[in-house]
Amino acid sequence: MAANPTAAMIVIGDEILSGRTRDSNLHHLAGKLTDHGIDLVEARVIGDRRQTIIDTVNALRARVDHVFTSGGIGPTHDDITADAVAAAFGLTAGIRDDARALLEDYFASRGVEATPARMRMARVPEGAVLIDNPVSVAPGFSLGNVHVMAGVPSVFEAMLQGVLPRLTGGAPVRSRTLRMLRGEGDVAEILEAVAAEYPDLSFGSYPFQQDGRYGTNLVIRGTDEALLNQALFRLESALSEDAA
Amino acid sequence: MAANPTAAMIVIGDEILSGRTRDSNLHHLAGKLTDHGIDLVEARVIGDRRQTIIDTVNALRARVDHVFTSGGIGPTHDDITADAVAAAFGLTAGIRDDARALLEDYFASRGVEATPARMRMARVPEGAVLIDNPVSVAPGFSLGNVHVMAGVPSVFEAMLQGVLPRLTGGAPVRSRTLRMLRGEGDVAEILEAVAAEYPDLSFGSYPFQQDGRYGTNLVIRGTDEALLNQALFRLESALSEDAA
Repeated sequence: MAANPTAAMIVIGDEILSGRTRDSNLHHLAGKLTDHGIDLVEARVIGDRRQTIIDTVNALRARVDHVFTSGGIGPTHDDITADAVAAAFGLTAGIRDDARALLEDYFASRGVEATPARMRMARVPEGAVLIDNPVSVAPGFSLGNVHVMAGVPSVFEAMLQGVLPRLTGGAPVRSRTLRMLRGEGDVAEILEAVAAEYPDLSFGSYPFQQDGRYGTNLVIRGTDEALLNQALFRLESALSEDAA
Repeated sequence: MAANPTAAMIVIGDEILSGRTRDSNLHHLAGKLTDHGIDLVEARVIGDRRQTIIDTVNALRARVDHVFTSGGIGPTHDDITADAVAAAFGLTAGIRDDARALLEDYFASRGVEATPARMRMARVPEGAVLIDNPVSVAPGFSLGNVHVMAGVPSVFEAMLQGVLPRLTGGAPVRSRTLRMLRGEGDVAEILEAVAAEYPDLSFGSYPFQQDGRYGTNLVIRGTDEALLNQALFRLESALSEDAA
């Protein structure tokens, strides 16, 4: 698992931090990256402030293989992401001809005037690769290892479908889950013992409540399906012996 | 708004980053802090790694008035938060008598043995103030300006109810939302013009899709209800003039 490429996400939006909107892009990205064999190691939610975006992009792009951003692209005054990401690389963002063409065709097809405000959506940093937006045309972009996508979930998800095939993944991380109506404390020692037998797998336990009872999901993660099945069987046996 | 106390959140859990679990504590905390007049300025989701927790706690506690953590407390081997938060302050976490008493009574009342694994939930840093857990007893704690709470939503929310009254809030941030079936680009210029008239308020626009049509939520935020109503009226008038 350590050999897989790493990624970080930056969710940009005051509306998430104010509690107005519930982000769903992090959960979506996390699942897709796991399937693709890329390890998401951190996510940050930050406000729509230029310097904050610049600092966060620079802090993370140096530390992981890929940075994915969500939100803050679009025509309005609070959408400063394209400029901020460009600035993080010491570049500027202007209305690029390829992006301009996409939008002008789109607006023309809908009989909508291409106002300056609308054309701001064509602002892309120099040297960036466009990310296709099959939902609402206004493109995202990849600049170096930073992939800038929209915040609207349907658009974010469509853009991600365009980006992921370009990225080299590692071995997909698989998991096995054992759900039981026993408290975490009941199984901690057994879990620790079995985990020690399988250094190549990662073990976690996640408590839940159901009808006022406590339960625990024991999760084993790794890239080797056979080893996962073996460890799952070992864990099940150890727990049933203990319960007997 | 700038005068309000600031906060950051740290969501601790590999299960969020792997996409296995969808976090709901950030959205809950964000709403409660807004009502309490505390500005959430950043949230980070990090893995269950000791050094990562130490570094993140130290980076954020120096920058905001309050840090709230979610997850990584409990009896199992991957729950290292109490130790890591203590270490961030140069302290250690041990089984404290007050926490031990809480748990022993609880286990006794349920006829459960107080095993070493279970008693790990009584580990609290020196000098920390316990956070009551009416759901499942194992307490959280406040150490300096860092408030350490469980990840299970029902427990996190109950703990937060215990912590918030202790914290000095500022003026609650209120908002007004104008929902319209016009694209962001259609209203960007008007929004910008009205926003310029009200420097004490913050304006945002958030696109959505409905039945294949594009709409936008225009949101005005501030602490002065009268000013908010005035700005909302001004924005409505400007938009209807434009549509006419």
